[in-house]
Amino acid sequence: MGILGGGQLARMLCEAASPLGIHVKVLAARDDEGARGVAPEVVTGDPMDPMAVRGFAAAVDVLTIDHENVDHGCLGELEAAGATVWPSVATMAYSDKAHQRESFAAVGIPVPDFVVVDPVADPAGARSVASDFALSHPGGAVAKASRGGYDGRAVWMLDTADQGGITSLLHTYRGAPLVVEQRLELSCELAVLVARRPSGQVETWPVLQTVQVDGMCDEVIHPAPVSPEIARSARALAVRIAEHTGSVGVLAVELFVTPAGEVLVNEIAPRVHNSGHLTIEGSTTSQFEQHLRAILDWPLGPTGMRTRAAVMANVVGVGSTEPRRRQGLAFAEVPGAHVHLYAKTPRDRRKIGHVTVLGDDVEALRRDASACSALLGGGDAR
Amino acid sequence: MGILGGGQLARMLCEAASPLGIHVKVLAARDDEGARGVAPEVVTGDPMDPMAVRGFAAAVDVLTIDHENVDHGCLGELEAAGATVWPSVATMAYSDKAHQRESFAAVGIPVPDFVVVDPVADPAGARSVASDFALSHPGGAVAKASRGGYDGRAVWMLDTADQGGITSLLHTYRGAPLVVEQRLELSCELAVLVARRPSGQVETWPVLQTVQVDGMCDEVIHPAPVSPEIARSARALAVRIAEHTGSVGVLAVELFVTPAGEVLVNEIAPRVHNSGHLTIEGSTTSQFEQHLRAILDWPLGPTGMRTRAAVMANVVGVGSTEPRRRQGLAFAEVPGAHVHLYAKTPRDRRKIGHVTVLGDDVEALRRDASACSALLGGGDAR
Repeated sequence: MGILGGGQLARMLCEAASPLGIHVKVLAARDDEGARGVAPEVVTGDPMDPMAVRGFAAAVDVLTIDHENVDHGCLGELEAAGATVWPSVATMAYSDKAHQRESFAAVGIPVPDFVVVDPVADPAGARSVASDFALSHPGGAVAKASRGGYDGRAVWMLDTADQGGITSLLHTYRGAPLVVEQRLELSCELAVLVARRPSGQVETWPVLQTVQVDGMCDEVIHPAPVSPEIARSARALAVRIAEHTGSVGVLAVELFVTPAGEVLVNEIAPRVHNSGHLTIEGSTTSQFEQHLRAILDWPLGPTGMRTRAAVMANVVGVGSTEPRRRQGLAFAEVPGAHVHLYAKTPRDRRKIGHVTVLGDDVEALRRDASACSALLGGGDAR
Repeated sequence: MGILGGGQLARMLCEAASPLGIHVKVLAARDDEGARGVAPEVVTGDPMDPMAVRGFAAAVDVLTIDHENVDHGCLGELEAAGATVWPSVATMAYSDKAHQRESFAAVGIPVPDFVVVDPVADPAGARSVASDFALSHPGGAVAKASRGGYDGRAVWMLDTADQGGITSLLHTYRGAPLVVEQRLELSCELAVLVARRPSGQVETWPVLQTVQVDGMCDEVIHPAPVSPEIARSARALAVRIAEHTGSVGVLAVELFVTPAGEVLVNEIAPRVHNSGHLTIEGSTTSQFEQHLRAILDWPLGPTGMRTRAAVMANVVGVGSTEPRRRQGLAFAEVPGAHVHLYAKTPRDRRKIGHVTVLGDDVEALRRDASACSALLGGGDAR
């Protein structure tokens, strides 16, 4: 199996592949960290470089991805020539937020109100459409780059009262088209991981709550604080999206829940995802093993959770403290913590690992996960 | 961290080290398989070759072992010069069955009746002592090579009525001293895994039942079918042995239980062990993670089991069938199986992997583990 990109998702795919007897190669840029030192073979090359991707693809049976910043055109050609690429290039195209929204809205998958504008191709049209949209949504609007944003980057709050702010954003912005959407009051955010095989079998894990801080996922909590009806409809929505997008492998669906109990799709990622890391120890089958099984068209594993509650907290760098010297501190604080370090060079505000704790009491687990991740990141136990 | 030897135990130590952010190097003979492709660095060299071990030791902070067939003399010199070697050379010496028995008997740790004979150094004495021992144990006797035997190799049943058989064994045998012991009627065999830190903290896992077929561990079962009193005394015995042997890291204690409820030490291994593989998914802390934490003197993790029952079955080669083409078959039979393949070249009767299943009902789990391991090994589901 070949993985395009060598970050922490590739690293954890390699960790899952080893006991299963799957031989993995990784195509990683020179400065890509994470998978190096874990993958049996690392080929240095840029997943955006068609030459590198073509050479790499020739040496593997199945291609998959660590991230979506890969050369879609080149993968499309390989696919047309008979290569096995999962997710398919058509599914990968859904990593574009504008494509997601337009495609989902067209088939009635519930999404927030939105418009797509292109400030580069049509500056005047973009200004007028975005202003009208913001004016008609007194709760405010948010603009998101359709491609290239992550962890709260490339997201702007548009204040309806401040039309000058909108104008100046659209005037200076030079990136991909923007999705402008209504700013919603939320009761919580959810994630549903879903796995699908080429032959059609689909499995979802229980619905998880995601807690964002400054637009970046900070904590993931099981069980999610929603009714069984909302949980059921969230899982059904994830299955519908997996089928609609022709997904093969794991796909993550991030959802908004409004105070009225509406469930709306925020965005999807056609791959394993930060919100699913607690499945490694928390579920019978981890998202990483399931992704491998799905893309090899092996029977999927059971997705039940092993304990009543589970919490994952990201380890985020505080300055350049090296977490690989602080495991003893973390275990002294929480002996049962499941520590995952990504072997990345620590930088301030960089995700360099995560911690999962399993048990019965969500609030106690949140305290433990948070204390342990803070110690690893370089701070004191919060 | 450096591991001497590159078999499946080194492989699973590497798998546990990766999420913890521990950098591992392995010293493996050219034909050693298992750790290759998982260890971030493999140095090719023989763990019995002092030159190779010395060079390897210079490049790591802590040395540990995959197996005990390493150059003890060389490790003793390194230890004396200040290198960190866990288990220590003094603890490693307990891999000699004669040393185990004599040392345990001297401090009152319960062991079967035994004598140690050396047919090479003293052929006449060995014949006379072994014959007398066999005659005085009408249930029969067993001779075991004190070093170099494993998986039922180098073990001989001595029939009291057949004195000619004893004489001929001792006449032709050219190996290490033999432990001759009473052949016991057993109600079951147990294993207790115990971890100890240099600073003294000790943890044991719940007692496990081991089922041997032809002298080779075939299945490991939790819970063991013994009373709480026997379980408690077995765990206490393991702690006593860890302290007596000065063990650091994980140590496995294999025990005999007689129909009268006596618990006797069969043998110990000063390392992670086949009987502990079900702790990977079955316990909060796996034996592999615990070994790493113990030898780094980090706080140990909790050792409770996650489910009421757990069963591990070894995958044993049937002919040269490649298990790495049969995972889909195994998952179709048991979707929740935890499959571990060691990436070893399959050979008839060679251990090439294991399968663990977790749940509530021991008998159902035994059927699942057995069916799944048979399919992987190259047979049909039994």
